[in-house]
Amino acid sequence: MSTTPLPSGTDDPVLNDLLGRVDELVHRLAHYVAFPSVGTDSAYAQGMADARAFLVDRLRALGFSGVTTLEAGGEPAVYAQSLEAPGAPTLLIYGHYDVQPPDPLDLWTTPPFTLTERDGRLYGRGVSDDKAPVLTAIEALGAFISIEGRLPINVKILLEGEEETGSRSLAAICRHHRDRLAADAVVSADGARWRADLATVNVGSRGNNGFEVTVTTAVKDLHSGRYGGAVPNALHVMAGLLAGLHRPDGAIAVSGFTDGLIPPTDAEREAMMAIPFDRAGFFDALGTVDTGEAGFDVLERLWYRPTIEVNGMWGGYTGEGSKTVIPNRATAKLTMRLGPGQDPDTAQAAVVAHLKAACPAGASVAIDDNRGGCAAYSTPLDHPLLAAVETAFARTLGTQPLRVRMGATLPLTAIMKTELGLDTVPLAFATADEDYHAPNEFFRMSGLTDGLAAWVHFVRVAATQTADDYAAYSVT
Amino acid sequence: MSTTPLPSGTDDPVLNDLLGRVDELVHRLAHYVAFPSVGTDSAYAQGMADARAFLVDRLRALGFSGVTTLEAGGEPAVYAQSLEAPGAPTLLIYGHYDVQPPDPLDLWTTPPFTLTERDGRLYGRGVSDDKAPVLTAIEALGAFISIEGRLPINVKILLEGEEETGSRSLAAICRHHRDRLAADAVVSADGARWRADLATVNVGSRGNNGFEVTVTTAVKDLHSGRYGGAVPNALHVMAGLLAGLHRPDGAIAVSGFTDGLIPPTDAEREAMMAIPFDRAGFFDALGTVDTGEAGFDVLERLWYRPTIEVNGMWGGYTGEGSKTVIPNRATAKLTMRLGPGQDPDTAQAAVVAHLKAACPAGASVAIDDNRGGCAAYSTPLDHPLLAAVETAFARTLGTQPLRVRMGATLPLTAIMKTELGLDTVPLAFATADEDYHAPNEFFRMSGLTDGLAAWVHFVRVAATQTADDYAAYSVT
Repeated sequence: MSTTPLPSGTDDPVLNDLLGRVDELVHRLAHYVAFPSVGTDSAYAQGMADARAFLVDRLRALGFSGVTTLEAGGEPAVYAQSLEAPGAPTLLIYGHYDVQPPDPLDLWTTPPFTLTERDGRLYGRGVSDDKAPVLTAIEALGAFISIEGRLPINVKILLEGEEETGSRSLAAICRHHRDRLAADAVVSADGARWRADLATVNVGSRGNNGFEVTVTTAVKDLHSGRYGGAVPNALHVMAGLLAGLHRPDGAIAVSGFTDGLIPPTDAEREAMMAIPFDRAGFFDALGTVDTGEAGFDVLERLWYRPTIEVNGMWGGYTGEGSKTVIPNRATAKLTMRLGPGQDPDTAQAAVVAHLKAACPAGASVAIDDNRGGCAAYSTPLDHPLLAAVETAFARTLGTQPLRVRMGATLPLTAIMKTELGLDTVPLAFATADEDYHAPNEFFRMSGLTDGLAAWVHFVRVAATQTADDYAAYSVT
Repeated sequence: MSTTPLPSGTDDPVLNDLLGRVDELVHRLAHYVAFPSVGTDSAYAQGMADARAFLVDRLRALGFSGVTTLEAGGEPAVYAQSLEAPGAPTLLIYGHYDVQPPDPLDLWTTPPFTLTERDGRLYGRGVSDDKAPVLTAIEALGAFISIEGRLPINVKILLEGEEETGSRSLAAICRHHRDRLAADAVVSADGARWRADLATVNVGSRGNNGFEVTVTTAVKDLHSGRYGGAVPNALHVMAGLLAGLHRPDGAIAVSGFTDGLIPPTDAEREAMMAIPFDRAGFFDALGTVDTGEAGFDVLERLWYRPTIEVNGMWGGYTGEGSKTVIPNRATAKLTMRLGPGQDPDTAQAAVVAHLKAACPAGASVAIDDNRGGCAAYSTPLDHPLLAAVETAFARTLGTQPLRVRMGATLPLTAIMKTELGLDTVPLAFATADEDYHAPNEFFRMSGLTDGLAAWVHFVRVAATQTADDYAAYSVT
């Protein structure tokens, strides 16, 4: 198995063309990364618009038809299509152009929106999640049009701008444009490979949900000398509420939270435990130790078990020096990861109810539900799209990939199933260690060449399939 | 009892002069408040320098001699003297010119450094703590010089710039200038009256100490999907550590923290319980409920019991929207209030040891001890200075004041006792409800006129005392 660049002399003319233009593609990627398309912060609205315009221009230049934007009240999605292969499957290609905030800026070695190559890696916010994988996909698909005159499969490309904010209007976009988006299955150019050292294909992801909670105590901040000992402190209350979400053994202490959770089958658990995984090395590399829920293997905790995480918390005086206040307000941002079977609304309601019930006298809790929830997803293991992706991976990496799940969330999987009746398989050469959602996000140069190869191989395999092969799986 | 302005026709020529110039004094106070002398933040260094220059100029103009600044490595203190009363007591007049930070700025009704009168109140950062009380003192003392040619007592005025940051170099200033500062006792123009509706004199204050604690878990922030369930979250660890400082009944859970604490005597407790105090109204006005340590009256908790308060806490993503990180770092600012008998270093070491012992595997705790500690203080109840202040209060307010303690800290009291052998009695007409250390700090107009009257009466009474009366109390 190899993840190094393919030899330049492959026997596929489309792949040969692409590998001869890698420098051009990196240059184009740098241009794309330079747009600060941070979807979580309205201060970056121009970066979002610029990233969309870039995609629209490029898709048109590559020869796709029907290039436009689709919207339903939130950030517009970019759409394009190529429908020149009668009888072949029609695949909806998904990706996103929004990126995580670059904070904390001072921890970046080079500026987040300036693509920088160091030691075979391309650094920049959003390069791994999801700009390089999306660019790889559209350039590879477009190369069929330029080299062979047409794509041998039908594709509909949908690139949304709200993945990092919970894909809030993706469902509405699907409903409003149901006919235009009709397809046989979804190929996701989002969703990282688990590890750079192992060939894997992802067959499931956790769901999520989230909210912001604010604790208020007195009508104002109070002097800690004048009032200390008599009145509640919002930070103490918040600390108690958050500490009470977990038991000392790491288990979640929220009644009703795991309602509906489906544990892995014995076969799934057996397959999971057979995957080569250096548990000690995993924690050593992160500079920490295994502190999760007792009684479960770390992979089961990452793939099947739900979590509640505090993503941010603040209150009181946070400037230089000291200020002797008893703060009257504290806020925390919480998100959950959900296992198979959990309903996002039910799970979140359980956490909110727990916090409200635990809130002591003299304090009140206010909830700002700022996200749409998403259920966990599992790909049918006999799906023809999964077979095509696995073959493409095998041809690219020289070994049959293992089936794994991921702890992260692909909101589109649940949305595509619910709104369009379609299953999703990811095809992306981002890797989970690439610090997306953290400073110094990067994408491996090898991911670019492997990704181009995988997309070309995938198109070749899918072109041997028919729409009829997919009919049993897409519920229209 | 009255707290309204005195009638303009008093029989004291000095007080008559002062009350005829109240508008001029308010104008001068506005000028002084306009200097943003925030001692806790180096960004305000110019405001500190400007406030010092204002005081130096004014003290010279009032006719004090020896006006200069004294320093010992920190913010300079302003010094002035008048030593024209042989045989009379020599009193060291203490105050401070630094103020609390104005944050959060958006909660101020009018700009914090623009003195604004509304409904008989003067609003501005530092007006109550301690700019109006200091200006009242020096203007009243200076009026004796201009009206009568000299002060009938000896005064040495010391106005420090580090009160809000723990008076870190005040002790060193006292040591370096021991001869210059030699006196019989200290009158503090800092230290608010407990209530506007009750004549009281303060005979004790709590001590304090403080530090910043940072929890670190992994080497970097981690994606909550990819790693959630396997690795520790610095915010969860911090929440657990802070929640563990108190028991469910509000008692402090830190072993060794109360070592040395001296509870009130039966007589003190009896006198305390006899003080008229509307307990329900106290909490209603703050919009909260009594949540302190079980088993103690609220006044005992405020005056005699120690506390641990979290003044600020932050970590993870705190911007707009959501960011699904597992933060690897969290920080909290903590301060303690200490009861009589507690050693500040011992108490703080107990809290630090508790946090370190409670820190779970996979996380580490770092301590930044950013303050100097200060012990609680009690004035000798038969001190001649206390008698003089009580008489001045009685003449000003028409009723004998009750003796009370305060929950806040006057670092100078311990420092003056240790470094100069002097006891301290506060003489100030700030009131504890004036939102110092919070947005919309104010000072009552009546505090200005009552304060001027109290200082004039005080000088008259102290002029009837002799240095010999004080000899038994000042240990030189």
